[in-house]
Amino acid sequence: MAMIERRLREAGFEIPVAQPSVANYVAALVQGDMLFVSGQLPFESGKIRYQGRVGDEVSVDDGKLSAQLCALNVLGQAKAALGDLDRLKGCVRIGGFVSCSAGFHQQPAVVNGASDLIVAALGDAGRHTRAAVGCSALPMNAATEIEAIFSLR
Amino acid sequence: MAMIERRLREAGFEIPVAQPSVANYVAALVQGDMLFVSGQLPFESGKIRYQGRVGDEVSVDDGKLSAQLCALNVLGQAKAALGDLDRLKGCVRIGGFVSCSAGFHQQPAVVNGASDLIVAALGDAGRHTRAAVGCSALPMNAATEIEAIFSLR
Amino acid sequence: MAMIERRLREAGFEIPVAQPSVANYVAALVQGDMLFVSGQLPFESGKIRYQGRVGDEVSVDDGKLSAQLCALNVLGQAKAALGDLDRLKGCVRIGGFVSCSAGFHQQPAVVNGASDLIVAALGDAGRHTRAAVGCSALPMNAATEIEAIFSLR
Repeated sequence: MAMIERRLREAGFEIPVAQPSVANYVAALVQGDMLFVSGQLPFESGKIRYQGRVGDEVSVDDGKLSAQLCALNVLGQAKAALGDLDRLKGCVRIGGFVSCSAGFHQQPAVVNGASDLIVAALGDAGRHTRAAVGCSALPMNAATEIEAIFSLR
Repeated sequence: MAMIERRLREAGFEIPVAQPSVANYVAALVQGDMLFVSGQLPFESGKIRYQGRVGDEVSVDDGKLSAQLCALNVLGQAKAALGDLDRLKGCVRIGGFVSCSAGFHQQPAVVNGASDLIVAALGDAGRHTRAAVGCSALPMNAATEIEAIFSLR
Repeated sequence: MAMIERRLREAGFEIPVAQPSVANYVAALVQGDMLFVSGQLPFESGKIRYQGRVGDEVSVDDGKLSAQLCALNVLGQAKAALGDLDRLKGCVRIGGFVSCSAGFHQQPAVVNGASDLIVAALGDAGRHTRAAVGCSALPMNAATEIEAIFSLR
């Protein structure tokens, strides 16, 4: 098993089977020495596990788990696209979108769920730049959406 | 006429004349073998055609047409920057921003209007990664905004 | 002193000391000949200077100053990462996020505060692509958040 997957398994995470995209876009795409991954939702076993606005129906802790699950799905898409996760050299940027109403301002704590997962997978090379922002709503009432750019070996 | 424009014309679309940017930014910029295009609004004949929040004042179908029109304007900016649309090799990523209130969760269906148009223009090479998110509001009360990164020949 | 810093000083701006990131991400990262900078908030002397939604608690003019301050912090992070701001060749893209409610549509005027600052620093090479969108809320109740990609010499 590839090192990145082994490291994640030791941390208690399994790379999920990637959900194929059902429209005129792709879940992941290689451009030069970068891999772009489409915004992923907190899908688990074919259903959105965390629905609603963080700070309202969804707690900050669950929002963080939602971002973590999105990041796992990002890695699932990377694996499906690359065959082998060990082709990932590092993570360049993530976009972290948090569904919330006007009074919620802990987007960084929520998006940390994704950042921590990526660093658990890639080690220090997983430390990335990011934007963490609040959205009025997300697809399928997801609590979070995470997109990513990785560098490749 | 360039192949991409001919293909679009056969699909019933004309590349619009690009709106110049009026502030300290540019509508499109070449970086290495990529072309970045600024977020485009659903301008038509100098006016925003689709205004309001999708799911409220704007139907999902009109939201999709709004995203399609944004994507046409993205291609208009690419043509203005490159001279010839056939320099586009593929599409790497689009950012799809949908103006909506908290209860609206069909951002993917809306942004498909842009994804479909880009694939109509570029064929399979137009299949891109994307993020589709809801915004509390967009410039000039536009229903949608689409930005893009293309790869170049 | 480096040329870019001198130019900014003549325009009345000091590059701030960069705030280190406190979680599993980095404020700036070199990828190939690009520098990615994480979304920066309107921090000044360790506090968020502009809080609230633009168009409600924050005026458009203050929103513009908020975006300008975010852009200064983007440059502060670039300096901390590169050592010397003169390694910046140009600016490729900024993401401009404006905290606002549904009725506010002047995001471009607000984000101009960032665009103008970057062009003041880099001259014509600072003219970039951008997306300017409205967010339901931002971290720490910031009025604006600005992320950026630069090209490097």
